[in-house]
Amino acid sequence: MSDHSEAPVMPVEAYEPPYYVAVFTAVRTQDQSGFGETNARMEDLVKEIPGFLGMDHAQTPGGLGITVGYFRDADALTEWRSNVEHRAAQQRGRVQWYQSYTLHVAKVERSHGFTRAEVPQSSTAD
Amino acid sequence: MSDHSEAPVMPVEAYEPPYYVAVFTAVRTQDQSGFGETNARMEDLVKEIPGFLGMDHAQTPGGLGITVGYFRDADALTEWRSNVEHRAAQQRGRVQWYQSYTLHVAKVERSHGFTRAEVPQSSTAD
Repeated sequence: MSDHSEAPVMPVEAYEPPYYVAVFTAVRTQDQSGFGETNARMEDLVKEIPGFLGMDHAQTPGGLGITVGYFRDADALTEWRSNVEHRAAQQRGRVQWYQSYTLHVAKVERSHGFTRAEVPQSSTAD
Repeated sequence: MSDHSEAPVMPVEAYEPPYYVAVFTAVRTQDQSGFGETNARMEDLVKEIPGFLGMDHAQTPGGLGITVGYFRDADALTEWRSNVEHRAAQQRGRVQWYQSYTLHVAKVERSHGFTRAEVPQSSTAD
């Protein structure tokens, strides 16, 4: 039920800086039992954090996964980082789900977005 | 020749802050003609930028692609941003390859990496 064939995928938009990104790059192990439900629970939990702005995720089959979380300020990140359920999930990730990962927490200094104009054959876009 | 079946995938490591990340999230159009060779050229070019630290990429089939470039300082990013070939590629991307994208440029404040210890059945790792 979670394929990409129908719903349009949209990256998280460019917010007005400053805001924070948490870039999480990971390679998974073979044993992914329990990952799906924990991941879904984390996605629900993070949305409850005041200042959570959104999340982008991409996964190359058999390869690298990248998740980018966007947060309004450092307090929002601190709250997410110290969440008890999140910490338990991280611990299980190190034991079971992740072969390796890297986390980069960074303050956005500039950003911009682009959406291509749809140009039907006989009209002009401005 | 560029599949992921053999070579181990490793995320870019956690460098000592401060450094910069450029997070590029994109949804592609149907028309990807010429993308592969331009992308390969850009990957070669960016490696020539002094202060370029590495790049992570993940692509969900039919969905979002995320590329994260890592740079030692703002000067490295400026040099890459103002590269003439890169600018031409960006322009073509807006016209042809990308339906939408977002770029977030951010200064890393903290980072850490994790690699799971391989534990063979009858030996200990140190």
